[in-house]
Amino acid sequence: MTDSIQFDSRPNHADANPLVYKVALLGFGTVGSSVARILCERSNIGLRLTHICNRNVVRKKVDWLPPEVVWTESIDDVLSSGADIVVELIGGLHPTEDWVRRALASGKSVVTANKQLIAHCGPELARLARQMNQQIEFGASVAGGVPVISGLHQGLAGDDLFKICGILNGTCNYILTQIESSGVPFTTALREAQKLGFAEADPTEDIDGLDARAKLAILIRVGLHCNVAAASIVAQSISPIDAIDFDYAKQLECTIRQISRAELKGDTLFAAVQPSLVPLTSPLARVERSQNLVMATGVYGGETVFGGHGAGGHPTAVAVVSDILAIVHARQSRTGRAPEVTAKSQPSEKSPALTADFVTRHYLRFLVKDRPGIIAALATILDKSGINIDSVLQKPGCQKSHLPFLITLEECRTSLVVQALKQINALDFMVHPCLHMPIL
Amino acid sequence: MTDSIQFDSRPNHADANPLVYKVALLGFGTVGSSVARILCERSNIGLRLTHICNRNVVRKKVDWLPPEVVWTESIDDVLSSGADIVVELIGGLHPTEDWVRRALASGKSVVTANKQLIAHCGPELARLARQMNQQIEFGASVAGGVPVISGLHQGLAGDDLFKICGILNGTCNYILTQIESSGVPFTTALREAQKLGFAEADPTEDIDGLDARAKLAILIRVGLHCNVAAASIVAQSISPIDAIDFDYAKQLECTIRQISRAELKGDTLFAAVQPSLVPLTSPLARVERSQNLVMATGVYGGETVFGGHGAGGHPTAVAVVSDILAIVHARQSRTGRAPEVTAKSQPSEKSPALTADFVTRHYLRFLVKDRPGIIAALATILDKSGINIDSVLQKPGCQKSHLPFLITLEECRTSLVVQALKQINALDFMVHPCLHMPIL
Repeated sequence: MTDSIQFDSRPNHADANPLVYKVALLGFGTVGSSVARILCERSNIGLRLTHICNRNVVRKKVDWLPPEVVWTESIDDVLSSGADIVVELIGGLHPTEDWVRRALASGKSVVTANKQLIAHCGPELARLARQMNQQIEFGASVAGGVPVISGLHQGLAGDDLFKICGILNGTCNYILTQIESSGVPFTTALREAQKLGFAEADPTEDIDGLDARAKLAILIRVGLHCNVAAASIVAQSISPIDAIDFDYAKQLECTIRQISRAELKGDTLFAAVQPSLVPLTSPLARVERSQNLVMATGVYGGETVFGGHGAGGHPTAVAVVSDILAIVHARQSRTGRAPEVTAKSQPSEKSPALTADFVTRHYLRFLVKDRPGIIAALATILDKSGINIDSVLQKPGCQKSHLPFLITLEECRTSLVVQALKQINALDFMVHPCLHMPIL
Repeated sequence: MTDSIQFDSRPNHADANPLVYKVALLGFGTVGSSVARILCERSNIGLRLTHICNRNVVRKKVDWLPPEVVWTESIDDVLSSGADIVVELIGGLHPTEDWVRRALASGKSVVTANKQLIAHCGPELARLARQMNQQIEFGASVAGGVPVISGLHQGLAGDDLFKICGILNGTCNYILTQIESSGVPFTTALREAQKLGFAEADPTEDIDGLDARAKLAILIRVGLHCNVAAASIVAQSISPIDAIDFDYAKQLECTIRQISRAELKGDTLFAAVQPSLVPLTSPLARVERSQNLVMATGVYGGETVFGGHGAGGHPTAVAVVSDILAIVHARQSRTGRAPEVTAKSQPSEKSPALTADFVTRHYLRFLVKDRPGIIAALATILDKSGINIDSVLQKPGCQKSHLPFLITLEECRTSLVVQALKQINALDFMVHPCLHMPIL
């Protein structure tokens, strides 16, 4: 409790000594080291990494962190330290559940990416956090870097959501999209995914939908406000899916994805994790490789989509750091400092030069009175302007007096194109000024 | 200031008298009445509508709101009331700027959907709010119901964003997708959009990109932390685009959308609102009709996508109510009550029955030893189970001993299918158990 009192009193001397919040990391694997890197590189967000706790810590030490960071194997070193926020990136339930409880009980807020922990005892941990006047945040526990937890909890708080449907497991999506694109058998796709690090040596958790259903249980709690044990959600394996199923799916104008979905209808909650056919027109069908996507449907706002990198050190670390900042903002608002853009824990405002002079490919559509030498005239002006033509396209069968055609340009600065078009638009064969657009 | 003190002291008697926050609406048009409807229908979120302020208020009155709601034409009635949060849905700068300043100055927090106001003087209003220990939220000012402001501000706060690219104007997107799908000239598509209410009588603001650039200026501030005047952003009209451009675009495997984009490169901010060619494989190409989509790219998390209904009363009202709830949560955390799922302003937790028994179309893939009568045997079992076959598909040229084929089913309960498959899987011609999946 001493920590908490110190903590709350800090803003009083904030102007003399800018407010810095101390962060301790439990676990220094892929995500942990990405979090450390962001905290290191983004020095303007008001966070300082003070502790890293990991087994075999000597082997883990890196040279790119400030020497003040304390490396330890003992959770007690972290709990007795002045750290404000403990970030749990160890995973599993043991010893993490105990450590997270002790961190909260010792007056520290907690950020975790641990879906098992949150699916297993999230509400209990939230209660403990409230009792201690602390917070526990778990945005990274579902869909890695895709901000779907905050999206459901805050961005769509005003809606009455009744349906959540998404692709929550990057391993399954990688395997399925590999079968789809290369026509390889399931076992080959799995082996490739394992070789490339997209699947674990024991892939059961992913393949059989157990990972996805823990995430779905969390989304159900946050978005549909229902408390469901992950183990009670039906999960069907993707292992029987083979190339032939994608052929059949294509004939039905569909493809196959591992879909996690939940729908509240009256007093019944439908929920399952299953390989499913999805229409090619659905955003779900276009989720490639290890991407994640969540669609939430509400009574008032209809369908809202959140998509991005569902896994990987850096994207997951973004979710973790966003959660740390959310705790800091809540602290600041608690002490009378509203969480606005200019608050200390926000990056300072930049003052760059503004320009629309994108370097891009360009689309130039002409309407001309046809006569010999038009292309030559245009090409000469473009060439003198240092602009390279990529292609010339003309639709057959158009009127000679209003002949449309198209020139695409290789990448160049937009201002060069605008300059060249001033000359071109003055040419006598131009019926209209040239329409130009960037090609993204 | 009296209001603010009253406000902060309330949680002390929260248990005796559940905490309710009072909301006043300025403007009772499409969005305003949707906000009123949500506040009315979602009685469990701890908000009470107390005032509606509008010109000609007698003509505006509706019978579905509680009689306690005060209808007034005078802003002073609102400012002198006990309302905690003032929601500004009038639009434009006059008299809204003055009214919003006065609301903040009188110790009320403000929620607004007014992009001009925020693009024009957002930072100033945020400063005033901070001085008064209040908040101003503007999630509905960009992309209506798509929670992109909270997504950038909170969900992706941990990333260092450098690029934002999106479709921010539903009118332009409606017109462009109409030209694309029907091949009509621009003027026809515009007239149709006007007839259907997707475009204003004077469509200049939308067509010429002025609406989108005000929104882009806000996204630049929130996501890229740069302060840019909307008027300084280049905006190019979509009016020269015609059906032929979609033909050309298609040849380039692209389509055309009004794209608002900003990219920070060193000390230069590239920004523009322009009709642009986008590859058919991009999520931007698949944004249909009046939908909105924003892609944010960060150094660490890569690309994140937010999509949904960018306009319309109900989706925009969801963004407004979400902002109201964000203010309430900040208040609660300020008074020592963390904004957790079980807090008073959150819907109470539901306890529905859990099932995976979705009613859906089904995909059944068989692998059989071919012999006469297989389809008949399967059809009989399905029919007796009350299940209707939709189609039977067989790829030619497969081995008779391992013959794959497909049956799709009309919509039915999954449990019926599982029951029928128990019988089917026991049949002697089955090489493998049947693979079954829902067709979404």
